[in-house]
Amino acid sequence: MLRLPRDTVLMIIDLQQAIDHPKWGPRNNPRAEANAAALIAAWRGRGLKLIHVRHDSVEPNSPYRPGQPGHDFKADVAPLAGEAVVGKTTADAFVGTGLEALLEAGGHTTLVIAGVLTQNSIDATVRHAACLGFRVILAEDATWSVDIVDRRGRRWPADDVQALFMAALDGEYATVCGSETVLSAMSRMRR
Amino acid sequence: MLRLPRDTVLMIIDLQQAIDHPKWGPRNNPRAEANAAALIAAWRGRGLKLIHVRHDSVEPNSPYRPGQPGHDFKADVAPLAGEAVVGKTTADAFVGTGLEALLEAGGHTTLVIAGVLTQNSIDATVRHAACLGFRVILAEDATWSVDIVDRRGRRWPADDVQALFMAALDGEYATVCGSETVLSAMSRMRR
Repeated sequence: MLRLPRDTVLMIIDLQQAIDHPKWGPRNNPRAEANAAALIAAWRGRGLKLIHVRHDSVEPNSPYRPGQPGHDFKADVAPLAGEAVVGKTTADAFVGTGLEALLEAGGHTTLVIAGVLTQNSIDATVRHAACLGFRVILAEDATWSVDIVDRRGRRWPADDVQALFMAALDGEYATVCGSETVLSAMSRMRR
Repeated sequence: MLRLPRDTVLMIIDLQQAIDHPKWGPRNNPRAEANAAALIAAWRGRGLKLIHVRHDSVEPNSPYRPGQPGHDFKADVAPLAGEAVVGKTTADAFVGTGLEALLEAGGHTTLVIAGVLTQNSIDATVRHAACLGFRVILAEDATWSVDIVDRRGRRWPADDVQALFMAALDGEYATVCGSETVLSAMSRMRR
């Protein structure tokens, strides 16, 4: 049974309109945005700390570049006024962002992470968070992968990419679970 | 054609005897240590900077724990007196180690990375290095993976783990290539 401390931060990563661009190819977990929105609603309902990590690409042609329409948050998971937004320029939300200091200043020990993409910013950020000593809960069904074609030309469907990355992260860097497990822990959290 | 600047650091990660412990299960790339040794010999021959990253596990039962025989470097890739050794306690060689400052102090821009395990310290360290702005060359045949059993019980052979992680890293976080490509670039480097 998952027990979460009251300092647990929900960190939503890169859920911006840019991720719907066709360049990324086929994805899995079509319900991920809805699951992330349910987590956000639970955090708001309890008044707990929520951090929206936003990708501010510095690549000229990225749909994630500031000024592009894709830079905007997806409507169903967008921040409300007063919620923390941390801009990043790399896959790793801890590099060049002040995120570690922000978490330390608030006395946060535990992070629930959701967002995209599993094989990019999720993997990089989960590992760095774990190596900094934070406890990481990865809400698997509120994340997704896209297909990968490897160096020999073999195509790995998004479901396979997701399964393998989650297996590599689980236990070693994060507790991987479904968003229902997180919501259930939230409902049992002391007020 | 790969061109490497004279500031290129060879970083060998966690090639200690502990990695031969049976707990890790089946691996791929049986020639990885020999390939790493060839890279080390080339760096020594040119007098270029070489950093041995050593895992100093803080887990009581890890074969990587200091004081255990597994903590020693593998004989064919062990540091010589005077070579830099950086101890780390997590998968990420940049966390708590001063490695970034060491690289910056030496004016290093480029890293060739080899060692183990692809799905652990290699992935974590390559991503963090790239996100810090270092150019990363990953010598694929001087690294290896071990089998992963995913959350549904499916076993992914080490070769598959290696292929998928290399595909996820290549282009986005590193240039993935064989050690022959690195050796060839070394042979063309200006003295």
